[in-house]
Amino acid sequence: MSDHIVTSYDEDLKELASKISEMGGRAERLVEDSIKALVLMDMAGAAEAVEKDVIINSMDQEIEEKAVLTIARRQPMAQDLREIVSALRISVDLERIADLGKNIARRTLALEGKNQPKQLVHGIEHMAELTLAQLRTILDAYTARDDMSAIAVWHKDREVDALYNSLFREFLTYMMEDPRNISFCTHLLFCAKNLERIGDHVTNIAETIYYLNTGLPLEDRQFKEDEHLDLD
Amino acid sequence: MSDHIVTSYDEDLKELASKISEMGGRAERLVEDSIKALVLMDMAGAAEAVEKDVIINSMDQEIEEKAVLTIARRQPMAQDLREIVSALRISVDLERIADLGKNIARRTLALEGKNQPKQLVHGIEHMAELTLAQLRTILDAYTARDDMSAIAVWHKDREVDALYNSLFREFLTYMMEDPRNISFCTHLLFCAKNLERIGDHVTNIAETIYYLNTGLPLEDRQFKEDEHLDLD
Repeated sequence: MSDHIVTSYDEDLKELASKISEMGGRAERLVEDSIKALVLMDMAGAAEAVEKDVIINSMDQEIEEKAVLTIARRQPMAQDLREIVSALRISVDLERIADLGKNIARRTLALEGKNQPKQLVHGIEHMAELTLAQLRTILDAYTARDDMSAIAVWHKDREVDALYNSLFREFLTYMMEDPRNISFCTHLLFCAKNLERIGDHVTNIAETIYYLNTGLPLEDRQFKEDEHLDLD
Repeated sequence: MSDHIVTSYDEDLKELASKISEMGGRAERLVEDSIKALVLMDMAGAAEAVEKDVIINSMDQEIEEKAVLTIARRQPMAQDLREIVSALRISVDLERIADLGKNIARRTLALEGKNQPKQLVHGIEHMAELTLAQLRTILDAYTARDDMSAIAVWHKDREVDALYNSLFREFLTYMMEDPRNISFCTHLLFCAKNLERIGDHVTNIAETIYYLNTGLPLEDRQFKEDEHLDLD
């Protein structure tokens, strides 16, 4: 009987972890599809990406329910408890990442027919590649419970921030050069900001993986935040 | 003995709730101070607001630890479990609200010495008043466990969104009129967006209060989100 309970408990934890992985894959594809739609100005693709966010929201709710049910039924301690708390935290971050992807798709819909300097969209594309690579690596790190890889991702977020800051300046320059670029550039600026925020959620997940493995917080966050003081 | 455990459990829950209230008060003041600093271009005030965010981050961690400890020590069911889950959720939203307030303070620091049309700052101030009123009402609703008030706040977020949309258009107009306004307006645009996002977190808290009282999700969120499709 005791054996049965242990096995089924393990299954609860495994199910939570696999739901997180599935949700992560879906969030990643949503961001990818949104960027593709923006680059190609593919309105149908953008609309599809917006719709897909609904599934991810309901997965977030499922994971919370599953976590709460597991907590209520069992009395988890130490590592098991961290597993459940981590699933809860990561689920929140993935839901936000998908939301930010959806925001990019919505911007794309709003951009239909607007004057669009190709070079700026390329800048966004480049930033998206880096951000998506970070997201993929952190999802793999979660699957492998690899805190070293999580730390590497966490540090590499500086590159995402640096790219954002340079894009920000580029956008301002374009706007000043020609007022007809202002509306388009403002929307692209928000898309870039959405990617930068996706990067921040990736670092949150990195912190959670570190906590999951070690029981400790990933420190010196404050220091890191201060580096891009001027442009949050 | 059993009595003692029950009382102490109640105390755990009360302590969680009172920590949330304290954290809410601090987050509210941080946003208030950030807006004041922006309106008065008070750099010392802005720097102070940025620093205060550290305390709120550590409160979020304390609340999570306390919640996790309570879950680990007791085996909460139904209403008690919802109390703890709600504290966890609200703590995340308050941490984000404080973060967004801090972003405004950081923008203020970046705006020092820039050309600033007074009228635009007034627009932000007006939007901040509405957003802060929403935040105050939802914190009171949490203390009173008042789901009717939570629903009212949830619906009223439309007004915050409408104000944001109208500010957005105003900012674009200013930028197009005079390129010297572009840099300042872009920063203000992000400040307005931060307020709009604070409003979204307030609606999250409203949903949590509703769930806390009823055990049900606050529905038709999708419908609401679709209303400001064009400007996320």
